[in-house]
Amino acid sequence: MAKYQQLVHQMRAQIEAEVWQPGERLPSLREQVALSGLSLMTVMHAYQVLESQGWILSRPQSGYYVAPRAEFLSQPVSHQKVQLAETVDINAFIFDVLQACRDPAIMPFGSAFPDPELFPQRQLMRSLNSVSRTLTSADAINNLPPGNEALRKMLAQRYAQQGITVSPDEIVITNGAMEALNLSMQAVTEPGDWVVIENPSFYGALQAIERLKLKTVAIATDPQHGMDLDELRRALARWPVKACWLMTNQQNPVGFTLTAEKKQQLVALLAEYNVALIEDDVYSELYFGGDKPLPAKAFDHASNVLHCSSFSKNLVAGFRVGWVAAGKHAQRIQRLQLMSTLSTSTPMQLALANYLGTRSYDSHLRKLRQVLEQRKNLARQSLKRHLPQGTRINDSRGGYFLWIELPKQVNATELYYQALNHQISIAPGSMFSSGQQYTNYFRFNASWAWDEAQEAAAATLGGLIAAMM
Amino acid sequence: MAKYQQLVHQMRAQIEAEVWQPGERLPSLREQVALSGLSLMTVMHAYQVLESQGWILSRPQSGYYVAPRAEFLSQPVSHQKVQLAETVDINAFIFDVLQACRDPAIMPFGSAFPDPELFPQRQLMRSLNSVSRTLTSADAINNLPPGNEALRKMLAQRYAQQGITVSPDEIVITNGAMEALNLSMQAVTEPGDWVVIENPSFYGALQAIERLKLKTVAIATDPQHGMDLDELRRALARWPVKACWLMTNQQNPVGFTLTAEKKQQLVALLAEYNVALIEDDVYSELYFGGDKPLPAKAFDHASNVLHCSSFSKNLVAGFRVGWVAAGKHAQRIQRLQLMSTLSTSTPMQLALANYLGTRSYDSHLRKLRQVLEQRKNLARQSLKRHLPQGTRINDSRGGYFLWIELPKQVNATELYYQALNHQISIAPGSMFSSGQQYTNYFRFNASWAWDEAQEAAAATLGGLIAAMM
Repeated sequence: MAKYQQLVHQMRAQIEAEVWQPGERLPSLREQVALSGLSLMTVMHAYQVLESQGWILSRPQSGYYVAPRAEFLSQPVSHQKVQLAETVDINAFIFDVLQACRDPAIMPFGSAFPDPELFPQRQLMRSLNSVSRTLTSADAINNLPPGNEALRKMLAQRYAQQGITVSPDEIVITNGAMEALNLSMQAVTEPGDWVVIENPSFYGALQAIERLKLKTVAIATDPQHGMDLDELRRALARWPVKACWLMTNQQNPVGFTLTAEKKQQLVALLAEYNVALIEDDVYSELYFGGDKPLPAKAFDHASNVLHCSSFSKNLVAGFRVGWVAAGKHAQRIQRLQLMSTLSTSTPMQLALANYLGTRSYDSHLRKLRQVLEQRKNLARQSLKRHLPQGTRINDSRGGYFLWIELPKQVNATELYYQALNHQISIAPGSMFSSGQQYTNYFRFNASWAWDEAQEAAAATLGGLIAAMM
Repeated sequence: MAKYQQLVHQMRAQIEAEVWQPGERLPSLREQVALSGLSLMTVMHAYQVLESQGWILSRPQSGYYVAPRAEFLSQPVSHQKVQLAETVDINAFIFDVLQACRDPAIMPFGSAFPDPELFPQRQLMRSLNSVSRTLTSADAINNLPPGNEALRKMLAQRYAQQGITVSPDEIVITNGAMEALNLSMQAVTEPGDWVVIENPSFYGALQAIERLKLKTVAIATDPQHGMDLDELRRALARWPVKACWLMTNQQNPVGFTLTAEKKQQLVALLAEYNVALIEDDVYSELYFGGDKPLPAKAFDHASNVLHCSSFSKNLVAGFRVGWVAAGKHAQRIQRLQLMSTLSTSTPMQLALANYLGTRSYDSHLRKLRQVLEQRKNLARQSLKRHLPQGTRINDSRGGYFLWIELPKQVNATELYYQALNHQISIAPGSMFSSGQQYTNYFRFNASWAWDEAQEAAAATLGGLIAAMM
């Protein structure tokens, strides 16, 4: 174990044993050098790791403090201590942020889900009820991978509405887009392979990559235009890349949508290098104004794009139904699914097929887009009122995220901890990157009805940021 | 690419291009040596691989033939040819066997699922209906990993009924036992690690191992007593094993149940070597007579056993709800689930919690066990009548599988193909082993009502076997 890791382990054990209590000031870097006999570099490295893991906080001009853990970390019980040490990575932090978003007492600005009140609860329940009356004992077998045929046909029709030819046979129904993305990544890579991702990117991509033991080339995105394709070309020329995972529409967390021209260039470039594109397109129904943006899949002539999406962000989160239009990889993905979850739940597939059959999905989506646009406007205006000068709000014409840039010196992870003390969650930039470039950014969920509570929370956030500047 | 692989690829391409048609005799080994200029060993190796992949059949005293593919393989379309080459493994064959079991025209003796008519369809629909009336928009968030609290509590109570202390907090609800097993395996291993499995074993274990790029030590099982623990001890002493995956009750495919004493010894031995036990216990409710057998988990003092089970084999297959009692690994498994499928479907969790709340599960299970025992007896008696002398039927007091040993010279994979021509599926031994020890075995699903059609199919099977002897 490297020396800094020894110090990390030792300090974590001390914090767990409450040698250092939450909120207490820790030895400064120089004091720690004197105490431990380690070099300043080693001590700094250890403190940075502890900070990135959420164990300690740095306060500018003041030093290092034990993070107020009891309030937001799931209580470590004795048998979990071993695990904490094994998962010294971005995941532990993401896990804690996600857990915090589940507490109904906490203002969920950090949530990844849109306000579930926007979903057509009553119609979905009607569909579920209809399934409960017609389910047969043969259904479980009939809906094994690739999944319910009627549902796959309706999805193929939705592609056709955009002029995209996708056969129902190349669609595999999955346990949400998350499974679609994971199986896609697995279908086109082996452990140790190189993949390209965006920076910042959806943390699910970072997690899948870690889970599948892949090596990454993370390419920085422009907040308006996304990934620089020249940069991508250089990366493809330099590394033996097997796959590229990115979001083409309403990218999470930044919000940009690639132009159709750029999508076309992207697909052509990847085809040139025979690199599979795993297209995460879960927000594409949430465009504001104009037409639904095309996916990169629309420009795919080499069956090289695995287009993944779901109903979770625009219709219902808890059903866990997504899909991948996987082209030539469809059969391999079916097999991988049979090996990992066997299949997507039958009643959930049937309920969604029933709901889509009622033809109310599009009118629901129209209403949803309208409300989200209004709410996002209100949230942005409120944040403009409350966030101090020097913060920048990146907005986009779609989705429900605002991507907020704080002044360089403000650490959004620290803001996250401070905001949690005020029962407010945000999604700090460090969740979306394995590097340190986005420590002064956070993602803001603007899907909530904007009321006094939201206004007050925005004011609190503003105050906390101002105090940290 | 090795020379035998080149020949495999070449012959597969020729079969696909119908240079050699289904049923046609292929060049003999010696003819192929002359044609290809390759050594006899190389040609034999290639033919064996092609046979194990189901492309060709060997007929004793007669030579090699192209397998009658068109009738049972999913039609290879042009874009899938590449994939077939990438999946040159046991999975392609398993996939095809599973697909065959889905055709309602085929007698499903090869199926892994019990007759779904045995499940309490009406009560389950009532539970689903009840959920459809009470589902709230907050439910999706509330049922994220570890999963529905009421359901976890009821599962913990079922453990308690057997005197096993499992906290609801260490249970994670999963998309069937398959996800529970996969996440468990992933939680305790890294790619390249060694794991112990049984031979023969559930093909899902073989697939998970391949998917996770693990190395295996497969230990032969005794049809009555299961794995030899001395053999296991030697393996643990020799290899740096991280985990052991096995079934302790009504093992699939063989059917044995380990004695309580042996389970205790197993747990102690693994604890001694600090090896995690992944206990696949999906059939434990299907014991005949006496008490429900204890799982190995009952003897686990080191939180070393990950006990995986589900409702799919005894209540409902299509809901895809299982769980793992994961001890100290529970949090890591939650995180892995968040990264791979996010969570189990909310309505399915709620419907099962509702069903368990009606307290009719145990009376359903009592009835189910009774019917399965009767049906298994009838099936065994019928097979005894129809299978030729020299076959042996391994039966056990539980579950719905018979494990049938054919005379050494009869290849069960060939029997599988021949039986399929008569619209009968079986599960040949080669599905359950990466070695060649079980080529003369097959698994027989005895859960079906025994009627004229079943009787006729058993007679047909017997005739086919006799002709192959």
